[in-house]
Amino acid sequence: MQKEFLAALDKEVELLELNSQPNELYEPIRYLMALGGKRMRPVFTLLAYSLFKSDWQKAVQPSLSIEVFHNFTLMHDDIMDKAPLRRGKQTVHEKWNDNVAILSGDVMLVKAYDYLNKVQDLSISEFQYLLKRFNKTAAEVCEGQQFDMNFESRDDVSLNEYIEMIRLKTSVLVGFSMEMGALLAGQSQEIASELYQIGELVGLGFQLKDDILDVYGDPSKFGKQPGGDILANKKTYLLISAIQAAEGDLADQLDYWLSENNQETDKKVEAVTAIYNVLNIKEKAENEAKAYFDNALAKINSLNIAPEGKKLLNEFLSSLMVREV
Amino acid sequence: MQKEFLAALDKEVELLELNSQPNELYEPIRYLMALGGKRMRPVFTLLAYSLFKSDWQKAVQPSLSIEVFHNFTLMHDDIMDKAPLRRGKQTVHEKWNDNVAILSGDVMLVKAYDYLNKVQDLSISEFQYLLKRFNKTAAEVCEGQQFDMNFESRDDVSLNEYIEMIRLKTSVLVGFSMEMGALLAGQSQEIASELYQIGELVGLGFQLKDDILDVYGDPSKFGKQPGGDILANKKTYLLISAIQAAEGDLADQLDYWLSENNQETDKKVEAVTAIYNVLNIKEKAENEAKAYFDNALAKINSLNIAPEGKKLLNEFLSSLMVREV
Repeated sequence: MQKEFLAALDKEVELLELNSQPNELYEPIRYLMALGGKRMRPVFTLLAYSLFKSDWQKAVQPSLSIEVFHNFTLMHDDIMDKAPLRRGKQTVHEKWNDNVAILSGDVMLVKAYDYLNKVQDLSISEFQYLLKRFNKTAAEVCEGQQFDMNFESRDDVSLNEYIEMIRLKTSVLVGFSMEMGALLAGQSQEIASELYQIGELVGLGFQLKDDILDVYGDPSKFGKQPGGDILANKKTYLLISAIQAAEGDLADQLDYWLSENNQETDKKVEAVTAIYNVLNIKEKAENEAKAYFDNALAKINSLNIAPEGKKLLNEFLSSLMVREV
Repeated sequence: MQKEFLAALDKEVELLELNSQPNELYEPIRYLMALGGKRMRPVFTLLAYSLFKSDWQKAVQPSLSIEVFHNFTLMHDDIMDKAPLRRGKQTVHEKWNDNVAILSGDVMLVKAYDYLNKVQDLSISEFQYLLKRFNKTAAEVCEGQQFDMNFESRDDVSLNEYIEMIRLKTSVLVGFSMEMGALLAGQSQEIASELYQIGELVGLGFQLKDDILDVYGDPSKFGKQPGGDILANKKTYLLISAIQAAEGDLADQLDYWLSENNQETDKKVEAVTAIYNVLNIKEKAENEAKAYFDNALAKINSLNIAPEGKKLLNEFLSSLMVREV
């Protein structure tokens, strides 16, 4: 099922309806969309849709609105974060320039609404509700990115604040992906909202996994600079937990490495990882991620849908839980 | 009528439904929207709506989608153009920083769709058509901005290319403002499209007027640095016309001033304006602007609407034609 979804989505991405001129506006969109990624969000939409209806092909184009929106946020976030690489390739603002990445991103957001507008068979009130939920989600993702940037200059970020930030920046869109699948299939707002909650929990677990993989992932598989978060002093779940747990000599060591940005990068990553290891931070984060996934699984089991549907969702979730990339 | 429209729009802008947190995301939106402006676009929407229906109050919120969208483009364009001032005040990226202006602009674009979603009484196909037209217009405005930036590094921009650029960057949104008024009032796509064409012509005339005012406007009224376009070697209708018309000694003088960016700014503005005067460039541009306005007036007169409606449109157009700000 997932493979069929992915094939249909990739085909649709190849067909991406874009003007050709001006080239500086549309080429970066094709470039970024072609870099791939897991297409996790639209797959979730198609999964949720197919819990209720079998003609999931009808939902492919509307589901792309979420993938295009997600890639738009990547294009703009990469400018703000001055990120040189995305999925192992040059970011758009690096390959072209900041202005191109700003404007190309803008038109990409418009394009996302174009794909959302490809829904069929909804009533006006159903469609306006879908659009309202899309807008709310989109605004929240921007709020999450702003909180993330604000955290850079703050030393007192709590775990609760961090979780709320990643909920906004990452999880609400995963939640909405599932909600949208239900709404496209003509389900009630209540049922759609139950799927939203499952997606939100999955998104939280997924992001915590991401924090862990950034430090402990196999670089040959994960495709990012290992320890990038450590080098950037990024206030992840791991770092915030370590700051809270470290005492005495260990706290001094952590302080030292946080203020130390000129040493060889390998040394810093190694030293901070060692502190994480002493404090069992990896286990703590894994337990937290597992708790979110377990919560999502429990909610799936209590859904009022056919057993095959539950099996489908469980399988996809399991593949996300054991992911190494 | 216009005053009533403006009062209703200003009230709605004051009520602008925005979250409060994070402050860096929402404060710049309030700031930019409060700087004012003529609100020409939503006024056009309300005007067009009231040609067909008297309850124009229903169209106020949807019409704000265009004003919010327009201000979003200003926020992002000002980053790209490195503009220090907007309506005599600091631009958002100057008052805060580039990242704030990028992200706050993004959420503003989402907010525009939120206001569009406040339409009432449309069928699903009418609403999807409206959204499709909004998206097309929004993408074209971005295309216009990209062409405008591309022109900066080109010496062979023709008048036709320039007109096409301002059509995209400015006129299509004015056209859509009127089209939207008709669509909100439940008119057919054909009638809406006739109003679009009128708005597009008005937008072209309006932008040419803007080019003229940048050189010849009364600085105490126009509120921009006089001769800003000349100092930036901006390829306006005036400069392109002058390059094409200048011969011999005059062409050499123009060349000299275009390559001269270090002299006192007053001198450059004075010298290039003097060349424009010798070549009657102001008259040429005014004739061109008048031709667009006349064309719009002719189209208004051939509209199948009540005489009072035509009178209303004519009056608003006339006020734009003689504008000094």
